[in-house]
Amino acid sequence: MSTAYRLDDLAQRVGGRVRGNGERSIRGIATLDEAGQEELSFLTNPRYRSAAGRTRAGAVLVGAGTELSGPDLLEVDEPYRVLARLLELFHPTVPRAPGVSPDARVADDVRLGSDVRVEPFAVIGSGCELGDRVSVGAGSVLGEGCSLGSDTELRPRVVLYPGTRVGRRCLVHAGVVLGGDGFGFATTDGRHLKVPQVGCVVVEDDVEIGANSAVDRAMLGETRLGEGSKIDDLVMIAHGVRIGPRALLAAQSGIAGSARLGARATLAGQTGVAGHLELGDGVTVAAKSAVLGDLADGAFVCGVPAIDHRRWRRSQALFKKLPELRRDLRVLRERIAAIERRLAGED
Amino acid sequence: MSTAYRLDDLAQRVGGRVRGNGERSIRGIATLDEAGQEELSFLTNPRYRSAAGRTRAGAVLVGAGTELSGPDLLEVDEPYRVLARLLELFHPTVPRAPGVSPDARVADDVRLGSDVRVEPFAVIGSGCELGDRVSVGAGSVLGEGCSLGSDTELRPRVVLYPGTRVGRRCLVHAGVVLGGDGFGFATTDGRHLKVPQVGCVVVEDDVEIGANSAVDRAMLGETRLGEGSKIDDLVMIAHGVRIGPRALLAAQSGIAGSARLGARATLAGQTGVAGHLELGDGVTVAAKSAVLGDLADGAFVCGVPAIDHRRWRRSQALFKKLPELRRDLRVLRERIAAIERRLAGED
Amino acid sequence: MSTAYRLDDLAQRVGGRVRGNGERSIRGIATLDEAGQEELSFLTNPRYRSAAGRTRAGAVLVGAGTELSGPDLLEVDEPYRVLARLLELFHPTVPRAPGVSPDARVADDVRLGSDVRVEPFAVIGSGCELGDRVSVGAGSVLGEGCSLGSDTELRPRVVLYPGTRVGRRCLVHAGVVLGGDGFGFATTDGRHLKVPQVGCVVVEDDVEIGANSAVDRAMLGETRLGEGSKIDDLVMIAHGVRIGPRALLAAQSGIAGSARLGARATLAGQTGVAGHLELGDGVTVAAKSAVLGDLADGAFVCGVPAIDHRRWRRSQALFKKLPELRRDLRVLRERIAAIERRLAGED
Repeated sequence: MSTAYRLDDLAQRVGGRVRGNGERSIRGIATLDEAGQEELSFLTNPRYRSAAGRTRAGAVLVGAGTELSGPDLLEVDEPYRVLARLLELFHPTVPRAPGVSPDARVADDVRLGSDVRVEPFAVIGSGCELGDRVSVGAGSVLGEGCSLGSDTELRPRVVLYPGTRVGRRCLVHAGVVLGGDGFGFATTDGRHLKVPQVGCVVVEDDVEIGANSAVDRAMLGETRLGEGSKIDDLVMIAHGVRIGPRALLAAQSGIAGSARLGARATLAGQTGVAGHLELGDGVTVAAKSAVLGDLADGAFVCGVPAIDHRRWRRSQALFKKLPELRRDLRVLRERIAAIERRLAGED
Repeated sequence: MSTAYRLDDLAQRVGGRVRGNGERSIRGIATLDEAGQEELSFLTNPRYRSAAGRTRAGAVLVGAGTELSGPDLLEVDEPYRVLARLLELFHPTVPRAPGVSPDARVADDVRLGSDVRVEPFAVIGSGCELGDRVSVGAGSVLGEGCSLGSDTELRPRVVLYPGTRVGRRCLVHAGVVLGGDGFGFATTDGRHLKVPQVGCVVVEDDVEIGANSAVDRAMLGETRLGEGSKIDDLVMIAHGVRIGPRALLAAQSGIAGSARLGARATLAGQTGVAGHLELGDGVTVAAKSAVLGDLADGAFVCGVPAIDHRRWRRSQALFKKLPELRRDLRVLRERIAAIERRLAGED
Repeated sequence: MSTAYRLDDLAQRVGGRVRGNGERSIRGIATLDEAGQEELSFLTNPRYRSAAGRTRAGAVLVGAGTELSGPDLLEVDEPYRVLARLLELFHPTVPRAPGVSPDARVADDVRLGSDVRVEPFAVIGSGCELGDRVSVGAGSVLGEGCSLGSDTELRPRVVLYPGTRVGRRCLVHAGVVLGGDGFGFATTDGRHLKVPQVGCVVVEDDVEIGANSAVDRAMLGETRLGEGSKIDDLVMIAHGVRIGPRALLAAQSGIAGSARLGARATLAGQTGVAGHLELGDGVTVAAKSAVLGDLADGAFVCGVPAIDHRRWRRSQALFKKLPELRRDLRVLRERIAAIERRLAGED
């Protein structure tokens, strides 16, 4: 049986206010559709307003000023952030037992911090350094001379090519490849000569990288993922790219070689950024867009090529009306022809 | 030497009709370009009509009423479906020997059905349940508490995060990651706080998932792939998504968090569906499109954002003619100016 | 300490000319921003002209006729190609020690050439053939009957399904899956019947394939990657596709089933090619485009669907101006109405 908390106890922990019965007992968190009387649900996205209206949840976490009849309310200023804290409270992370599996292969000269965990069939190459409480998932492979900062976790089957450096408190999901060769070829007479990729990948602290993403090493120097950046699944980051700090890259986005993204860039899903571009701080790229030119700080762009999102929206609205625009044009042509015929008749 | 079948024997097995020599001996199936006299080829796509005209195949599988001179014809109502059956007949699946490799690591409390196969370097965590005739490919990793229904096969290097449930008769290809963390962060003052992802992934019966695809676990509750759904390579399915039954998701498509797709949705290649949307039954999304709004049953959409495919087609045809449209506009402007000058001269 | 070369010695090796001090000692290569007095930098992309102007590099590799004051210049005809050679000179590939790890599982009947390397936890199935100096990375899995030509290297965690054939001097990066089942289903009454995929994948000589890409086996016959083709990360190549020789496929591009690409096709990032198409030799597809029809030799296309890139560019420029076009249309309508009113008043 999971621990129960009184609603007003939860409110106190997160700096919120109860509207309703503060003595209600809460044993867990669940979605609006699935929550019952002893569960707290949440309304953090207005799309789910009507689902909230029919929820059977005993209590609902809401933003300040939200009106909702029926359940007790736990009102807070930043409901999504508070939800994160409450999820941690009800689902505390259980630290996994440290220890190097006898089925892992760790080179003799690897430096291991305290309480390191290495799961079966992992391979850790010569010269690697793993900080305290690092965890390396089953089947992961670290080439020579890699480093992982303390509290960083590699889930199963991560590959780090030689010389990859990952900071502290990073989380790298299954299937990620860091440090593969950049896509660089010099083409002469139709033949593609490989340009050696002798740089590396550096991942700063507090970065998360989603399943099966790939980050290529630089031709020279570094590909660098800035502190606090969060990268979703199946993202591709090419050689020599620099992002962040605190970039958000949604699934299946891709950044071509040597592009630089400023702080807190947000790339929505399936977006692309062309090579060698400079994007300022706080840039936002709407889903499915492709950035083909430099962007100033704070730009919010959309389309292929990406342009200011308001301008794109106006043009896109007219794209849908192109058949009507052409019809209007035809009508005007006929009216003009009628006028011309009349004037010709006057001659 | 492979088994030979008489053409009329094949016809009887699949409920078809022979037009030509029913006694012809068929030893295999091959493409129109490569088939010889003892082989059956097939014409299931009209694009290959001319290739069929020059084939050296002894016999060709065709749909009812297809005219083709030269080879004998095996005429059936659903040629592609019959092709599937005939491929199975000539290339029967050889069941692989069951047994748990001594090089696999299976936790003590894992429950194994009969005739289970676990290949080398697979890791199966505590509390997992594997049904009868399940096969786990080399290097696969199952976290704690996963379940695989009978006759399900994981190809090499599949990763299931803890708590992932896969149904019966599923086929999961190499490199797939099921149950990775959803991409959920609460951003305050430019910092991204991880929202714990404590839900799971449920894959129903008869689902196939292509190489290197990724399906994220729900924040709460389930990400669910409905019965009979077929998913291609490098597809990304985000946290809390529900699809199917019997969805078809082509390569490199992606579905953002909490979107719901009805039965038999078809997403063509490189499509995207935005988060929190509701798509009805039988929806079709054309290649490279992005769905940014809810869709009714049977919708067939195209574009970014996706609109009705006929409307998109008309607008797209005019997009190509925008230079002509502008030229027409200029011509009209000149004609109007001429009229205005003439009328001004009359004053 | 790395080896030093005199600048005129480097010039002689690559057939270049020194403009400046040929006796300058060069110990390495670095980017314009990072190079110091004993390093050679390079200006191979005009975007970095201003960075070159402020570089502290002792010498800079440039194309013929480039003007740049300050550093000594090493002038050559093909600077990017020469850069590749110089990177090799300063960063020579260190061959890894051959040998089959005792932690690998190699079937008894596998034929190994000389100096083969097989890393830990690799699995090599029955009937495989590995040429001389082949290297198989940690955790890779080769199904039955695969072949790897001499000097081919698989990085860690590559999966080859049974029967995959890879030529000589190929480089396959981590996470790649070759030979997964093609996405073929015959749908009747809403159910998807799997069409057996009994063909194979053939990779010709000198092909490179980037991290986490997937190439599916043909339903029948071959999926074939032509000689000298270079494929980036997260690329998807479907069943029965043929590309090359010498194709360039940038990251996250995808080719649907049975499409044929001629020699030297270039697909930019996030492009797609629909199924069953024929693309001629030397075709170029601009980033984010989708090819939905056959293309003639030398076509350079852009857009969704992809059209001639010049035409697309003109239309796209007008797309941005659609609001102005509509405004112009309104102005003309008003002028016409004014004329019509005037003429009506004359009656």
